[in-house]
Amino acid sequence: MTLSLIPLLDFPLINPGDELPVLIHESLQENELQLQNNDILVLAQKIVSKAENRFVNLTTVTPSDSALFYAQQTGKDPRLLELILSESNQVLRTRENLIIVEHRLGFVCANAGIDHSNVNGPWGDPADWVLLLPENPDQSAACIRDYLEELYQVSIGILIIDSHGRAWRLGTIGTTIGLSGLPGLMDLRGKPDLYNYRLRVTKVGAADELAAAASLVMGQANEKTPVVMVRGFPYALREANLQELIRPEELDLFR
Amino acid sequence: MTLSLIPLLDFPLINPGDELPVLIHESLQENELQLQNNDILVLAQKIVSKAENRFVNLTTVTPSDSALFYAQQTGKDPRLLELILSESNQVLRTRENLIIVEHRLGFVCANAGIDHSNVNGPWGDPADWVLLLPENPDQSAACIRDYLEELYQVSIGILIIDSHGRAWRLGTIGTTIGLSGLPGLMDLRGKPDLYNYRLRVTKVGAADELAAAASLVMGQANEKTPVVMVRGFPYALREANLQELIRPEELDLFR
Repeated sequence: MTLSLIPLLDFPLINPGDELPVLIHESLQENELQLQNNDILVLAQKIVSKAENRFVNLTTVTPSDSALFYAQQTGKDPRLLELILSESNQVLRTRENLIIVEHRLGFVCANAGIDHSNVNGPWGDPADWVLLLPENPDQSAACIRDYLEELYQVSIGILIIDSHGRAWRLGTIGTTIGLSGLPGLMDLRGKPDLYNYRLRVTKVGAADELAAAASLVMGQANEKTPVVMVRGFPYALREANLQELIRPEELDLFR
Repeated sequence: MTLSLIPLLDFPLINPGDELPVLIHESLQENELQLQNNDILVLAQKIVSKAENRFVNLTTVTPSDSALFYAQQTGKDPRLLELILSESNQVLRTRENLIIVEHRLGFVCANAGIDHSNVNGPWGDPADWVLLLPENPDQSAACIRDYLEELYQVSIGILIIDSHGRAWRLGTIGTTIGLSGLPGLMDLRGKPDLYNYRLRVTKVGAADELAAAASLVMGQANEKTPVVMVRGFPYALREANLQELIRPEELDLFR
């Protein structure tokens, strides 16, 4: 089946308190799109964080000793490091201008996903504002899904994505940070292959494959298309959460 | 713009010596698809390897001392390990039933990408056959591209993908192992964002995002849809190679 990824054009800029589900509905209408069963909406993290007012003004942050230590290690702003540490379970690596952490949500990423570009805070100098990831992206996804499923009387999935670097490859790719209603991981083990052998090591990161796909359509240089409608997702929708995509520390060979 | 990923249905099973560009052309016709400028064809590694006869029969392999050592570490077949080592620059990690290497092509993956499922060799017991990655996937992609560009008088991209695990996340995702005619990495640094700040860290793994997208459409349990046609790729096509996606060892914090 063809997989189609359709950007919602002219999506409005988001401010704290905006009702994202309502704005998505309005944008679907303006784009003359009707949600159907098994459709998935992919949302850029940034609009969810903005709607949930995850802005922090750096002038309000007092760095701890630990933040000052990592500021020295990385050359980054100690106030930003204070926020990164407060959003993280563990620091994995540092280098000049780089800090890799295990985020409190469980995944490994740079800067705890805290964003400094395309951030224009509610007051004062834009350069003072940063944007944290949503408090609970799975829950954010579930709320948006509930509203739209009720309104359209359909079963859909909601995926919230961010751009993550990779350990051994250059370039970021769109990666799941929260989801509701679609599988994170597809366990295909035990299914016979074409020659009736058993596939042995086949768990597919289905939501992450879709996150990467949608990221292509969103682009990176602006947030003008932060919502992408997906039709033709090949796997059955089901309840799921981010946790199923996180490699447990005891299976992690690369910390 | 909408991104569409269209599987070529009923693609034939591939045998050594098959002319892949010709079979792709025939399949496009059967699927009533016409290649247009800026289309991209994504190919599963397995059909390229089979066409190039990258089969090896394990009964012909004599394990070295090093292969015997890693067989003991991992519990894997020492003959398979001999092949893995011969296809690798470096062993990064081992664990029971797992070996992570830097492949001779530069990327990090499990088992040097050597495949044991869906492999039905030219003779004897299917269980004795394994399939290595193509000798030079960039070159394989370029040959297929040349043939189809000439035939259809268009500019297209060819992407060859495999399923790779990730350091910190569960589930494999489709990942580039060779390409021709489309950008691997998109460097968006220096472009102004919505508020005229400079984006600071934005190199996008565009080919890998597309690899993940196409992998969704191919599925994993069979090779019946190993070719996917992509329309609406958002970046300009250009000459490129796999190397631009490989993180140089001196920038690698996780070996």
